[in-house]
Amino acid sequence: MRILLTNDDGIFAEGLQALTQEIKKIAETYVVAPDHEQSATGHAITMHRPLRAEKVRYSHSPEVPAWAVNGTPADCVKLAVEALLPQRPDLVISGINRGANLGTDVLYSGTVSAAIEGVILGIPAIAVSLAEYHNPDYTYAAYFVARLAQQHCRHNTKKDLLLNVNVPNLKPEEIKGVAICPLGVRQYKNAFAKRKDPRGREYYWLAGELVDLEENEDTDVAAIKEGKITITPIQPDLTDFAFLEELKEWKIKL
Amino acid sequence: MRILLTNDDGIFAEGLQALTQEIKKIAETYVVAPDHEQSATGHAITMHRPLRAEKVRYSHSPEVPAWAVNGTPADCVKLAVEALLPQRPDLVISGINRGANLGTDVLYSGTVSAAIEGVILGIPAIAVSLAEYHNPDYTYAAYFVARLAQQHCRHNTKKDLLLNVNVPNLKPEEIKGVAICPLGVRQYKNAFAKRKDPRGREYYWLAGELVDLEENEDTDVAAIKEGKITITPIQPDLTDFAFLEELKEWKIKL
Repeated sequence: MRILLTNDDGIFAEGLQALTQEIKKIAETYVVAPDHEQSATGHAITMHRPLRAEKVRYSHSPEVPAWAVNGTPADCVKLAVEALLPQRPDLVISGINRGANLGTDVLYSGTVSAAIEGVILGIPAIAVSLAEYHNPDYTYAAYFVARLAQQHCRHNTKKDLLLNVNVPNLKPEEIKGVAICPLGVRQYKNAFAKRKDPRGREYYWLAGELVDLEENEDTDVAAIKEGKITITPIQPDLTDFAFLEELKEWKIKL
Repeated sequence: MRILLTNDDGIFAEGLQALTQEIKKIAETYVVAPDHEQSATGHAITMHRPLRAEKVRYSHSPEVPAWAVNGTPADCVKLAVEALLPQRPDLVISGINRGANLGTDVLYSGTVSAAIEGVILGIPAIAVSLAEYHNPDYTYAAYFVARLAQQHCRHNTKKDLLLNVNVPNLKPEEIKGVAICPLGVRQYKNAFAKRKDPRGREYYWLAGELVDLEENEDTDVAAIKEGKITITPIQPDLTDFAFLEELKEWKIKL
């Protein structure tokens, strides 16, 4: 098994290094990741300037070929598959992200977008995030996702299978199980903080407190609160098939 | 009717100006758009630096309030709705993009992401693109989308209705009709051009020729080739519902 690792927190992020150390035990491992943090880049790609890939070396894993790219997570996957790796990988794993990628927020996520780029290129993928920003411990998440990667390769018959995984920041014995569930909804309030600079000109910080929607439903947003690992299969076709027929009834004319 | 206009080609792009001149005839119009081109930014948002909004004035439409923002298309919509506009808009229109946004490519599209940000905020939206990069004429596309906006407001009972529209670069009498259709697939080959800089270091340009997949299916990719306007309803939930039950059968354990 040949696995490509990437992320959106940058090549020297702790989560990616923890992941590398686990994945190299089970597969031929390559790392191609942004040279600096790229959170909330969504599915951006770089078209208007050239990309560079610099070879880097992890002191804990000098045998793992690794490149830092001056681009987005989606750039990294595309460049890895089309130019850097000697052969196509069997699986792309993106993460371990510092902070959850749940519900509506996956649209903004560089972590998930890198995984989507994998399936666009015909390679199944896993995006994995740890639901803790301030004091993350990636040990169990890395272990879990390595087991999942093995299952993924065993079961997978479809090239476009993408799993979005969130792991709570708990000790293994405190985790309440694994929830296979759809994406939920994440809403924010007070989205911007308005301030004035020393010259009196206004500017805005994206802020936004999460609104607690009291989701009783079976979604990733609800399950992570219960202390479960969440796994959601993702697909990149945004067509609203349910509305297609109704739209035809509009009889839109030239 | 109150309409917010935005785009990803930048506030002074010709397509947005053509759109403004048509939309102001039918609605109270506001423009909040990036201060420079932001193509292929996907659903990026700006979290790690503050945003600024500068008032600008279109010479052809000095009565239309307009702001240039140093952020992404999704930032523009969020900032417009949460901070700049006196009231919430009834509709967001993003475009008119220079170049098509079809099939798989909508994931990379700043134009479509701005519209998705609208529906995330509970405001219906239209993304509109002209399928021509080199010699675009936005006149008919602007006229068409203004009519569509009126229909959209008349019909719409759901707050999350998002239409992705592509208009061929043809004279009105040459357009072959309106196709309501799902997104197709766009694949590229030779994705990167590898070069050397004057100091002998390698770099990569994203290139990528479109592979002609000979789609006979009823998709936007096929319909635009036939000279039709394409309209696809879009929804932002990436959950692969069809695969959820099968994934449960994997019996994934801690």
